Amino acid sequence: MSRSWEETAEDKKFRIAASIPEEWRIKGDILGDSVMEYPSISGIMDDVELSITESSAVDLVAKMAAGQLTSVAVTTAFCKRAAMAHQLVNCALEFFPDIALARARELDDHLKTTGKVVGSLHGLPISLKDQFRIKGIETSMGYVSWVGERDKTNSVLVDLLLKAGAVFYVKTSVPQSLMVCETINNIIGRTVNPRNKNWSCGGSSGGEGAIVGFRGGIIGVGTDIGGSIRVPSAFNFLYGLRPSHGRLPYAKMANSMEGQETVHSVCGPLTHSVADMRLFVTSVLNEEPWKYDSKVIPMPWRQPEEDAIKAKIASGGLTIGFFSSDGNVLPHPPVLRGIDIVTSKLKSAGHDLFPWDPYKHDFAVDLINGIYASDGGTDVFDTLKESGEPAIPNFADLINPSLSKIDVNELWSVNLKKWNFQIEYLEQLRLAEETLGKEIDALVMPITPTAAIRHNQFKYYGYQSVINLLDFTSVVVPVTFADQNIDKKVDQYTPLNKMDEKVQAEYNPAAYHGAPIAIQVVGRRLTEERIMAVAEEIGRLLGNETTP
Amino acid sequence: MSRSWEETAEDKKFRIAASIPEEWRIKGDILGDSVMEYPSISGIMDDVELSITESSAVDLVAKMAAGQLTSVAVTTAFCKRAAMAHQLVNCALEFFPDIALARARELDDHLKTTGKVVGSLHGLPISLKDQFRIKGIETSMGYVSWVGERDKTNSVLVDLLLKAGAVFYVKTSVPQSLMVCETINNIIGRTVNPRNKNWSCGGSSGGEGAIVGFRGGIIGVGTDIGGSIRVPSAFNFLYGLRPSHGRLPYAKMANSMEGQETVHSVCGPLTHSVADMRLFVTSVLNEEPWKYDSKVIPMPWRQPEEDAIKAKIASGGLTIGFFSSDGNVLPHPPVLRGIDIVTSKLKSAGHDLFPWDPYKHDFAVDLINGIYASDGGTDVFDTLKESGEPAIPNFADLINPSLSKIDVNELWSVNLKKWNFQIEYLEQLRLAEETLGKEIDALVMPITPTAAIRHNQFKYYGYQSVINLLDFTSVVVPVTFADQNIDKKVDQYTPLNKMDEKVQAEYNPAAYHGAPIAIQVVGRRLTEERIMAVAEEIGRLLGNETTP
Repeated sequence: MSRSWEETAEDKKFRIAASIPEEWRIKGDILGDSVMEYPSISGIMDDVELSITESSAVDLVAKMAAGQLTSVAVTTAFCKRAAMAHQLVNCALEFFPDIALARARELDDHLKTTGKVVGSLHGLPISLKDQFRIKGIETSMGYVSWVGERDKTNSVLVDLLLKAGAVFYVKTSVPQSLMVCETINNIIGRTVNPRNKNWSCGGSSGGEGAIVGFRGGIIGVGTDIGGSIRVPSAFNFLYGLRPSHGRLPYAKMANSMEGQETVHSVCGPLTHSVADMRLFVTSVLNEEPWKYDSKVIPMPWRQPEEDAIKAKIASGGLTIGFFSSDGNVLPHPPVLRGIDIVTSKLKSAGHDLFPWDPYKHDFAVDLINGIYASDGGTDVFDTLKESGEPAIPNFADLINPSLSKIDVNELWSVNLKKWNFQIEYLEQLRLAEETLGKEIDALVMPITPTAAIRHNQFKYYGYQSVINLLDFTSVVVPVTFADQNIDKKVDQYTPLNKMDEKVQAEYNPAAYHGAPIAIQVVGRRLTEERIMAVAEEIGRLLGNETTP
Repeated sequence: MSRSWEETAEDKKFRIAASIPEEWRIKGDILGDSVMEYPSISGIMDDVELSITESSAVDLVAKMAAGQLTSVAVTTAFCKRAAMAHQLVNCALEFFPDIALARARELDDHLKTTGKVVGSLHGLPISLKDQFRIKGIETSMGYVSWVGERDKTNSVLVDLLLKAGAVFYVKTSVPQSLMVCETINNIIGRTVNPRNKNWSCGGSSGGEGAIVGFRGGIIGVGTDIGGSIRVPSAFNFLYGLRPSHGRLPYAKMANSMEGQETVHSVCGPLTHSVADMRLFVTSVLNEEPWKYDSKVIPMPWRQPEEDAIKAKIASGGLTIGFFSSDGNVLPHPPVLRGIDIVTSKLKSAGHDLFPWDPYKHDFAVDLINGIYASDGGTDVFDTLKESGEPAIPNFADLINPSLSKIDVNELWSVNLKKWNFQIEYLEQLRLAEETLGKEIDALVMPITPTAAIRHNQFKYYGYQSVINLLDFTSVVVPVTFADQNIDKKVDQYTPLNKMDEKVQAEYNPAAYHGAPIAIQVVGRRLTEERIMAVAEEIGRLLGNETTP
């Protein structure tokens, strides 16, 4: 009596649609490529609700703690806007406003009764990628075969966010398997970019990028093994943190290729500001995640590190390496301009910028591609077989089935190559520091070779994945938007290789006009305090962040 | 024209013997089972030299820094005593007093000229397990096929110890492959325990245990993937630190099964006191090892952690769980008494002791044994084939060739089982803390089921290896010595299983009379500051350590 995968997907789609109350449903047609203005003209949200969703998380928790706002009000506002987001860009795999509002009422009552908040996120709605487990709710991770099973436990991060006072209300869409940087699956189809439906919202935390970009969420939580937090952040004009492995808990998450430890997937936030990012990270660390997840390092937030780098920033004393091209694939003109804008701003503020040579990035890209495919796709393809659903487009770009399964000794040899590459990269940093006679604070580089990309065009993962291979800390900073009047296509370019040729061919100034441009700020392993502060400074210089 | 493995081994043995100057050679027969008294009666060392080798490292570096002792004098004393050690217990695979003395002279000159030490270990001889690479010196790791090749680079820890001012003079013996807890190889044969030639010095850092136990070394450096620092420490009445993975650098070491990352081997010191251990660890951390080895966590010595636990100790406020048996193998009577002594002393000092249930240790032992053998021994057996040498006795106890090679997906499944076990163990700790209403500071447990063991009798690795699987921090503390008048054999014991039966059968009060007894103090991952302080307190209560 088993259903076809199409029936399972239809049913799930229907259930998601049914979770949206009648009064939050969009009536009539949506015109235009962008849906960003819709909330203010829809009539579904009032001015207070609009203003709540357009605040910062830092402000919201402060106001809730002071009794100036209730969690019910805040949660209602975000639920409404999230409901619209789903209807407009197709970003939710689970939506549960009733559970969220019940939780919000409890938190409001607690505060009223005790006069105390339960934690530093008291009352704040947080959206989760559909990879986090919440007891009683489904986790499909984009696989049809996983639809219908309710989770029996929470992921550790979910537990700790609850302890800190968070409210969950939505789990957002991901690409089938997570191993792709666009968001499409056979359950609900494609999630599109709220700024332009012809652009991807990125992936694999693409639903998070779309919902937070649309302000149907204030802090979203994604995961990143090859760019999956950073790409959706970049494509939705958001800040995104890929912490180093071991800083934030990952235990009890759903995943493909579980137990693959050569390159670890990590959790991290997508936010509108570094201040909100810091609120999230410090809130999680305050809950001592290392007592719950053995992979988390007992490393509380290091305030002295933050203070030290802020002192350097204040005196215009940062030392920052940068590059525009990794030598494999030249970024499109908007991204090259993004790097120029950021380095110019930093120089004008008195900081020291020097060109960084992207050491053996070509080698690293090949190595990590082999790691992603090290089981020959066994785990992922087995999961597809269970339901009979087909693979999504672009799937083979990251898990290349032509790369055959390796054996244990070969895997160990890959582990060793990775470690040696990491050691050599550290050596390059040390040598540069010796030459400069001072410490390097961060590296600035592209995060993708393109601005928010057109559908089915995401080809090159190298700017993202080398950072995963190094396990360096990275924060994506939104810079500006592509402009067809400035970002002209280069004539007579000689491609570096086939991949570069494909990527260059995709550039079209008119099609990318207005697409978000971002860069990433990168530091050695476990330098979250430092890199977040540098990212905040860049945001401040660009005028894209208001420091509270 | 290739030589037989026997000829290669003979040549290496000859070269080691030839490295000992004529005036340091032992004439005549050595009588008795123990060689511990030999240095004071040999005539090779004068009283000043004897006194130097019987000092603490903390004292020696202080005196050298103050100009009260030269590095040449200190190095000479340890070279002499190490030369005796090798002749008496067969513990060296490389001995290079000339290089050491040249280095010592340089350091003395530097201090004289500049008035400054080069680092916190200025002038101090440090012995290394023959797994560390020193440029220009051989690393055999107990494999005949590796003999004869001089290293082209230093291991990272070697580089950092040199920066801190250390002097290297000897590399000590290991069992072939390192995967055994007795020290025997086909190059120089067996290393014996200086307290009794019928006992093992432990392994795999057995040469370190023997040479430091004999005071031919003051701080020895070993590695531990299944007890290899802790067992030689226990068998030679020493303190030994197995730090958690990522605290100290391991990069550029020689190893078998390189790239195996399911359970990491780690480096750590074997010392006569926690004070010397702390000197070593803080000296290495001061050199910022995370800038050289990507696996090292940027975590300097956390003085506030040490201060906090010391305050607790001072007020008799420690909370310590303990157990005597892991439920798999019951320790011999001397070890059971060792646990009793330690827990009684702690209770008398006002600390709170509670019984700890060794959660699923049987499961963990099976799991880690599968990990050690996960390539079916391919890597190790291939290395033996290169020279044609046979496997050493006991080899199959840890790398069981009946456990067949697993594939990549199976390895990932093992990784996941390990992680889940670690998470469950953390949960047990949290639950116990909830019940107790306070934080658990450490666990006290056996490190081996036997006192220093008779040759070829090391069978059960479970007390050691579960800690490796958990990646918990462990410090071995010497307690006392087996006593045939107290530690009677138990009559009519019903063995728990075949392994327990074998281990129990080995106990013989007369044969073990006088053998060192030790316990280990264990804490969560990366709790070195805390666990070292607790170990120091236990040593102080036992009278086995003088805190400076």
